[in-house]
Amino acid sequence: MAPPKTARKLQVLSPVPADIDIANAVEPLHISEIAASLDLSPSHYDLYGKYKAKVLLSVFDELQGSADGYYVVVGGITPTPLGEGKSTTTVGLCQALGAFLDKKVVTCLRQPSQGPTFGIKGGAAGGGYSQVIPMDEFNLHLTGDIHAITAANNLLAAAIDTRIFHEASQSDKALFNRLCPPNKEGKRRFADVMLRRLQKLGISKSDPDELTPDEIKKFARLDIDPDSITWRRVMDVNDRFLRKITIGQGPEEKGMTRETGFDISVASEIMAVLALTTSLADMRERLGRMVIGNSKSGEPITADDLGLGGALTVLMKDAINPTLMQTLEGTPVLVHAGPFANIAHGNSSIVADKIALKLVGPGGFVVTEAGFGADIGAEKFMNIKCRYSALVPQCAVIVATIRALKMHGGGPEVVAGRPLDHAYLSENVALVEAGCVNLARHISNTRAYGVNVVVAVNMFASDSESELNVVRSASLAAGAFDAVICTHHAHGGKGAVDLGIAVQKACESQTEPLRFLYPLDICIKEKIEAIAKSYGASGVEYSEQAEKKIEMYTRQGFSDLPICMAKTQYSFSHVPSQKGAPSGFVLPIRDVRASIGAGFIYPLVGTMSTMPGLPTRPCFFDIDIDFSTGKVLGLS
Amino acid sequence: MAPPKTARKLQVLSPVPADIDIANAVEPLHISEIAASLDLSPSHYDLYGKYKAKVLLSVFDELQGSADGYYVVVGGITPTPLGEGKSTTTVGLCQALGAFLDKKVVTCLRQPSQGPTFGIKGGAAGGGYSQVIPMDEFNLHLTGDIHAITAANNLLAAAIDTRIFHEASQSDKALFNRLCPPNKEGKRRFADVMLRRLQKLGISKSDPDELTPDEIKKFARLDIDPDSITWRRVMDVNDRFLRKITIGQGPEEKGMTRETGFDISVASEIMAVLALTTSLADMRERLGRMVIGNSKSGEPITADDLGLGGALTVLMKDAINPTLMQTLEGTPVLVHAGPFANIAHGNSSIVADKIALKLVGPGGFVVTEAGFGADIGAEKFMNIKCRYSALVPQCAVIVATIRALKMHGGGPEVVAGRPLDHAYLSENVALVEAGCVNLARHISNTRAYGVNVVVAVNMFASDSESELNVVRSASLAAGAFDAVICTHHAHGGKGAVDLGIAVQKACESQTEPLRFLYPLDICIKEKIEAIAKSYGASGVEYSEQAEKKIEMYTRQGFSDLPICMAKTQYSFSHVPSQKGAPSGFVLPIRDVRASIGAGFIYPLVGTMSTMPGLPTRPCFFDIDIDFSTGKVLGLS
Repeated sequence: MAPPKTARKLQVLSPVPADIDIANAVEPLHISEIAASLDLSPSHYDLYGKYKAKVLLSVFDELQGSADGYYVVVGGITPTPLGEGKSTTTVGLCQALGAFLDKKVVTCLRQPSQGPTFGIKGGAAGGGYSQVIPMDEFNLHLTGDIHAITAANNLLAAAIDTRIFHEASQSDKALFNRLCPPNKEGKRRFADVMLRRLQKLGISKSDPDELTPDEIKKFARLDIDPDSITWRRVMDVNDRFLRKITIGQGPEEKGMTRETGFDISVASEIMAVLALTTSLADMRERLGRMVIGNSKSGEPITADDLGLGGALTVLMKDAINPTLMQTLEGTPVLVHAGPFANIAHGNSSIVADKIALKLVGPGGFVVTEAGFGADIGAEKFMNIKCRYSALVPQCAVIVATIRALKMHGGGPEVVAGRPLDHAYLSENVALVEAGCVNLARHISNTRAYGVNVVVAVNMFASDSESELNVVRSASLAAGAFDAVICTHHAHGGKGAVDLGIAVQKACESQTEPLRFLYPLDICIKEKIEAIAKSYGASGVEYSEQAEKKIEMYTRQGFSDLPICMAKTQYSFSHVPSQKGAPSGFVLPIRDVRASIGAGFIYPLVGTMSTMPGLPTRPCFFDIDIDFSTGKVLGLS
Repeated sequence: MAPPKTARKLQVLSPVPADIDIANAVEPLHISEIAASLDLSPSHYDLYGKYKAKVLLSVFDELQGSADGYYVVVGGITPTPLGEGKSTTTVGLCQALGAFLDKKVVTCLRQPSQGPTFGIKGGAAGGGYSQVIPMDEFNLHLTGDIHAITAANNLLAAAIDTRIFHEASQSDKALFNRLCPPNKEGKRRFADVMLRRLQKLGISKSDPDELTPDEIKKFARLDIDPDSITWRRVMDVNDRFLRKITIGQGPEEKGMTRETGFDISVASEIMAVLALTTSLADMRERLGRMVIGNSKSGEPITADDLGLGGALTVLMKDAINPTLMQTLEGTPVLVHAGPFANIAHGNSSIVADKIALKLVGPGGFVVTEAGFGADIGAEKFMNIKCRYSALVPQCAVIVATIRALKMHGGGPEVVAGRPLDHAYLSENVALVEAGCVNLARHISNTRAYGVNVVVAVNMFASDSESELNVVRSASLAAGAFDAVICTHHAHGGKGAVDLGIAVQKACESQTEPLRFLYPLDICIKEKIEAIAKSYGASGVEYSEQAEKKIEMYTRQGFSDLPICMAKTQYSFSHVPSQKGAPSGFVLPIRDVRASIGAGFIYPLVGTMSTMPGLPTRPCFFDIDIDFSTGKVLGLS
């Protein structure tokens, strides 16, 4: 029996109503219907209410022998305050493919952080007639994955400080006695996770009673250097007052104070692990080898050294299953993982993409979103995500708007609260032409991976025919396979049918192999320099701190990892105000950090905030419930 | 059609295997079968995987006209390190009622905190052959309620500090302009939550443009006194280094540092709100009126003043639905809310009990657990929970063990890691007799509410006939309706059949009305003194701080709330080492705080920790996943 069709035609209104009103006006299908449209039976997923289900990883194992569909990645030009509509285009394209072009399609999206939902940005479910629904469930707890990350991250943090505290007050013998207490028969036993530490130390004994005093000391004393700790606590709230704090000031902590801070939960390395892992067993290994700092003698200390690899995996065991939702037009969506693209690798999960590619099968489409521009999300998509997943995209979509291109062409500054400048509201071909240098570099950078590029111009009513033609020509000149005008915000999937057709053609004619920007076996600096060159930089400048850290990570054996640049998304360079396609600058590397569990080295290009703040009037003022309908109000 | 029977007979082994092994050996029924046994159809609940479902509050509305079942509360004697098995008895009693006595029964339990699960205590799903399953899901994220509380609590905390920050740097006019910005047409609008603040201020205008400069100042400037802030951040992790911290040390926070700290999430007032609320609309009101501190002029500042009542409700909208699970013998369990009993009111939710009473109907039983002894959980059950719910229990079960009574009778100290003293392992009738003073006071205190008391002696193999007889006689002499020996840990429901029969008789013969310990309309001190008297105290001593706070809360109009004593659970008095039934002591009140949203004043009797720590070898060392079966290992 063919799976039921779930595609649903929309009644669109003009002018386009508020996002939440559009979302609330559509009654979503029961998620089991969406699942059935992908040939999933109830044993393949766990329901979370009526409109969300977690698809179990076992689905991938079952389908391992079958062929994949086409793999499409959506990125954007360099973002501006005017917005490009990247998520909206991702959703609109899928609504076109699924509801109008009769293709099997799955949209793979990142789970948004709850912090910005209540802060400035609002939700992230797309917009207009291209949205994931129910948008309140998408933007709020979803199925608890980020909460699980918060819990796991903070359990590890608590374990670090408490371990230092206990080591400070106990002799080697007492410490060992507490770590491996004798049972009723006087017999000691190592927990499984302790055997990993013994192995790392080169101690091949499994009976605690056989350890020599020196081995006992090596095993029981992690001797963490408090100044070396890179592991911070996290919270999924925009709480700027936690950026820098002093902990341990209670009298019971005996003066063991330490300066540290909180990041927003999506910045946790555990989020990056979730996004990059390929199986439950692989996640167990990655979580266990996360490095939290060094011992006083300079050896990396891991979560497994602290005894936590198994417990963290248990906390994350449901989070590893992607969440199935639906678009306004009834096409399936997998929401999974949500690392930020400026401070992490900014892509949704490998496991969701892999499952989706099997579910759509040959001729079907998986459309996945990478954060921000080609310098940020797409570069990391190719060099980190595809390297770990071994998946190869057939097409990259780059989303642009006439307004944003005008800004890249030198258009006036946009200030929140002030009316938009005339330049953005009426025809100005010269500005658009000038701005196309930004788009062109995103195209050529992406083409360099050997992938076909389709430009999607997300159209506004004020865009003129001449302006749109300029973008089309510039795109083709820069090497794009095609450039298409879309109106999915106003019309849903119907407005992205041309884009869908172009993407299909691009996929069908893709023949080149995926070419990475750098091999893994060159040194850290060479890799950084390869990426910097792709930004347009003429060179790289390292701080003393960065030099030291590169040396340290190399000495610790981590130099063969890929690189994840932490850089502003607002420019190809490190200076957010440099629009267009800057070149000839020297990229400064302020510091270098490492996410060993996730599997990358991340150089910090300037200072990136890892904890947003709340404005004077946060979004939360408008968020409430209508008790008569039970609907959430005021989400945007 | 009669609902399907789900009761299932257990194959019990001797000696009793580890809790997790018993739990993993039973394949749970799909939760829809458990739901069907309560006449619930799929529209009444949301599935969360195969073994958990959230029962929607609308069920209560549907059944509002139908009659309630019997309402049984389970408490214990004063706890000792030897344990009493209160949760185990609660579950065992229900397995007896449901699987052996053919009664409709629902067990109402608190959700355990994840902190202790990975710390010292381990899980809280009962034990032996009386457990809630799957025990890993019970002890871990469950359906995300505690995570929702953490998120809501911390959003409010972030809003407090950020508001102070923004008020410090902006003029009244700028502040008002940001809070009520003009839209494109230049028109300003108050958010709904702002109208609440205007009403509180006695400003009956709804057009922002009509406010006078003085009204603008009153409206826009909360003028929070940083030293008065009682709202702390929370985390569901045992992180002792967060007990006392300094926040705001980042350069962007401009020197606005403040000393504060984190509590464990279950200590959040939002947890108490969840436990005591009666509907979504009631929860909205309670969340909005939570007081976070005072203005510099001494007025209480609420979550609604900060603009958050609606947003907090949205974060908590799914958490208000109780989670349906099952016991080892297939009887239904509602898990909902988990405030600690020493620092909060220590009872599961009103909404779960109310729904359960309708679901079991006349002749059925709802067994709900109150934390610790009659001084802690049961007193608060009667005077706070039943006062807000208007429900009346027909029977109170008090759980005791011979071992624990021996300790109350003067038995030797129990030290973790050292072998148990001989006194606890062989007959010692004199110690048991002496210890029964503790049990007797719990019985008489509970009888004072007009409720029938049944004592459940949770039997160990080492207990002698004479020892058990002593407890029976002492119980009856103290006014108990009955006293019964139980072996549900070893035998499941079958071991609690006598208890089930006694509880049924106690319920059927209950005739007295519920008598509260104090009326609400006396002053705060008189209420505190009534409770202290029930502890055996001869008087109460107030610190200067406590005197000031009582005066303040009285002036602020909060003196008619019930009292929730924050007191050690290890003694009737404030001194944990005073076992048995101490009397004649003077109860010291160190400080007085208030949970205005939850609806109680809480005096602090001594210093209670609101953030546990981790030991040198926390439970997490043993927690892992068996990748071949997917089962969680090492939970206890």
